[in-house]
Amino acid sequence: MKEVFIDGVGMISFGKYRDRSLVDLMAEAAVLALKDSSTDTVEAIFVGTQNPEEFTGDGNVATMLADRLNLSGIPAWKVETASSSGASVLEVAFMAIASGRFSRVLVVAGEKMTHLDTPKVTRILAEVIEPVERASGASMVALAAMVTQSYAHFCGLSLKRLERILCKVAMKNHYYGSLNPYAQFRNPISEEDYFSSRMISYPLRLYDCAPITDGACACVLTSYRTDIKISGVGHGTDTLAVRHRIFLHHFNAARIAAREAYKMANRSPEEIDFAELHDAFTCFEIIASEDLGFFEEGKGWKAVERNETTVEGKLPINVSGGLKARGHPVGASGLAQAVEIVWQMRGLVPPERRVKKNDIALLHSIGGLSNNNVIIIFEKTGTPMGRGFSFDREIVDASHHKRDPIRVSEIGTLDAYTVLEVPPEGFPRPLVLGLVSVPSGHRILARAAMNMIYKVGERVIVMKEEDTYYFMRPSKLEAILFTLSKIYRKLKIWLKRKLL
Amino acid sequence: MKEVFIDGVGMISFGKYRDRSLVDLMAEAAVLALKDSSTDTVEAIFVGTQNPEEFTGDGNVATMLADRLNLSGIPAWKVETASSSGASVLEVAFMAIASGRFSRVLVVAGEKMTHLDTPKVTRILAEVIEPVERASGASMVALAAMVTQSYAHFCGLSLKRLERILCKVAMKNHYYGSLNPYAQFRNPISEEDYFSSRMISYPLRLYDCAPITDGACACVLTSYRTDIKISGVGHGTDTLAVRHRIFLHHFNAARIAAREAYKMANRSPEEIDFAELHDAFTCFEIIASEDLGFFEEGKGWKAVERNETTVEGKLPINVSGGLKARGHPVGASGLAQAVEIVWQMRGLVPPERRVKKNDIALLHSIGGLSNNNVIIIFEKTGTPMGRGFSFDREIVDASHHKRDPIRVSEIGTLDAYTVLEVPPEGFPRPLVLGLVSVPSGHRILARAAMNMIYKVGERVIVMKEEDTYYFMRPSKLEAILFTLSKIYRKLKIWLKRKLL
Repeated sequence: MKEVFIDGVGMISFGKYRDRSLVDLMAEAAVLALKDSSTDTVEAIFVGTQNPEEFTGDGNVATMLADRLNLSGIPAWKVETASSSGASVLEVAFMAIASGRFSRVLVVAGEKMTHLDTPKVTRILAEVIEPVERASGASMVALAAMVTQSYAHFCGLSLKRLERILCKVAMKNHYYGSLNPYAQFRNPISEEDYFSSRMISYPLRLYDCAPITDGACACVLTSYRTDIKISGVGHGTDTLAVRHRIFLHHFNAARIAAREAYKMANRSPEEIDFAELHDAFTCFEIIASEDLGFFEEGKGWKAVERNETTVEGKLPINVSGGLKARGHPVGASGLAQAVEIVWQMRGLVPPERRVKKNDIALLHSIGGLSNNNVIIIFEKTGTPMGRGFSFDREIVDASHHKRDPIRVSEIGTLDAYTVLEVPPEGFPRPLVLGLVSVPSGHRILARAAMNMIYKVGERVIVMKEEDTYYFMRPSKLEAILFTLSKIYRKLKIWLKRKLL
Repeated sequence: MKEVFIDGVGMISFGKYRDRSLVDLMAEAAVLALKDSSTDTVEAIFVGTQNPEEFTGDGNVATMLADRLNLSGIPAWKVETASSSGASVLEVAFMAIASGRFSRVLVVAGEKMTHLDTPKVTRILAEVIEPVERASGASMVALAAMVTQSYAHFCGLSLKRLERILCKVAMKNHYYGSLNPYAQFRNPISEEDYFSSRMISYPLRLYDCAPITDGACACVLTSYRTDIKISGVGHGTDTLAVRHRIFLHHFNAARIAAREAYKMANRSPEEIDFAELHDAFTCFEIIASEDLGFFEEGKGWKAVERNETTVEGKLPINVSGGLKARGHPVGASGLAQAVEIVWQMRGLVPPERRVKKNDIALLHSIGGLSNNNVIIIFEKTGTPMGRGFSFDREIVDASHHKRDPIRVSEIGTLDAYTVLEVPPEGFPRPLVLGLVSVPSGHRILARAAMNMIYKVGERVIVMKEEDTYYFMRPSKLEAILFTLSKIYRKLKIWLKRKLL
């Protein structure tokens, strides 16, 4: 297996982006990662996102992003494993480099959710729940609440005590979120805030649940040695139905993933310096800290009580704010954890939340209700890295609209046309569409103003009315007038040049 | 790079499956592939499918399938690149083996579409079209029609002559489909059938377009030497918008993919013995045959006229029936081509459509309107393969409902419960849900018959009413009666044993 290293990384602040599309956000994060890299050349793109089709209405997002980055030509894939997509896409890209097929690839993850109302988001997210449980009315938070309760029961914790522990996790993560300029929530919360927050699904309150978020992040993987390498990856799955699992108080998929990742990296849990765990619900952070072997089974809550998971503690966990405060754009969260780890290792986070020892770190991401778990281990290689070759190519601005002309009303050539007898809803039947090349060098997809028989290669007039382009065959007179106006324009330019 | 070989493959007949889910179909194909393999052990699952969320309402299908196959625990990913998902998932799995991380993986692809009406399917498929073109009313077939027209124009073909050529492609593929028991359409068509078929988008008729289909197929990849290896893979992308491309009569993404695949395999187009090309529209088969270097640019139609692409011809193309007649379950088609190639190489197809020379073959798959193209080259290794270790493990029957009890009305233990304050639409608020272990060893997700405060670990009665389970705290009397009935049952069994 070839070694896999991390070059540049990039992330946009998580939060709400009203007027921007998912691909906008992904492209921005990708450019940040490319700018942060030693070179902007990449050979392939891997995109992780949970459900852009239903959240945004766009399909084939990987290719869409390649196009947007002006990188059309290179391969592009979308990888999905529900809310661990951001981590599992990194894992797939890791294998692509490890296989030797590519030497530099771009990994991007993102999700756009806040433009939809909460019931709709909840319904879309619920698609990953096992159908029978979904039909019983169980949402993600309801299942997580039952896991939380089961954990408390296993540990012999009263629910009162459990609540105080969950409150500590929420307060810790919100505090670190307040120190993270990339976090959606940058306000620390108090015990009163926590206990007065709305009960969502007993015993989980609003402050126990990660929010709905827009966000994107990116990372360049390479086979060339840099300061950080990925030394281990692991991935485990569990039964879709929570009720089919033997134990409810821990996650088998996490244990399987951990075993594989530790084995590949040849590391043990004691060697991990800090970790980013999937705290979609506060209790999941505690359960994961046990599943990954940081603390004994049933003892993770004690570590929280003893402040062992703070930045000063034995094992800092989620000192980025975690999913809880950084926000949880579902498909992006796994890769955001990786970006955070890289920034910690490169000393690029604010000193108040910078970990003291940062040689080996681990990320843990959950897809679905722990239907799968992905674990990735990062290590500093000791190689100093010559980064910071910022480059000026404007990638994001090479977007579609830039490739389309702004004003059009002239004669062009009809490159191809079709009479669509089964048009989409809301369009007249038959719908005559044509591709018209205009003198500016652009090509326009336009509707025929009149349904008649056209010929490929003939000259047509193109006009824009509201947002739609129309094309029509010019009358003889019009054709002559257009030719004259063109000559006039050319003459004017020629005269101007002569006179200046 | 480690060498990658193909062990077993499997496919279900393509067509319409009214009463079965996507995961049903995928599981059946997966079992066929595992049964066809030298061993049923696999270390990971890669699933290719375009849009199961919107077609079927289920998310995280990769993990769902792992669960269904009783393989929960091993990693599972979904890979998507629109209609080339079946080929690009094979490519990703290829890299997973080539990287050395896994030595045996299961690749499954499938799509379930026929249960939706055509306008809905068309709308979902249209999500991969560039937004501005989509808003103009352009569907996939409209864009394909314009590409077809542009091709005819480039070749200087009259549309009359083009129609006769497209008709030949349609007739050829339907003829081979009639010899393929896995094809959706097993009827040869005549010239009259073709010319009397409905015009969909001029100049494309109904018989120029691949149908809407349900289907699934699977394949086991391994690093252990078998009779067939994957010697080259290639993947290229193009601008999302068709209007932004310089040439309309060929596909740049296919040329990029071909270059990479030929280079990796160290082969030239002349060495390919037969090919499976992406004939979602008849003309695409001709264009691909040029893009891949089989025929000169603008000469592919002549090869069709001269019958060079039939099973007796110089280069048999789509002698499976192609997407046209085998059917086009979008996410599955790419992998179905691979299964067809393997069956041809192993001599498992009917003699009437068996190719004479079958040492090297190529598959070509298109995602979106040629937004991306995937090419994979297969070669016989000369190693005889000891396959056919059929095994009896019943995988498909280990489905969810088997893990749930059929009759329930007894006392169980409440393992966890929650009071969901924000229930999904159509459920009462608050919704009290509980997980109840019953003596049969099953666990049930049930609703509380009465909203009250429960305790984890307490005994509750579970009942089924219509399709919903309810749990309730038994009254003292009920508890005693239940205990008595249990004693009575045990007594009866004891007595029976004594008396027999």
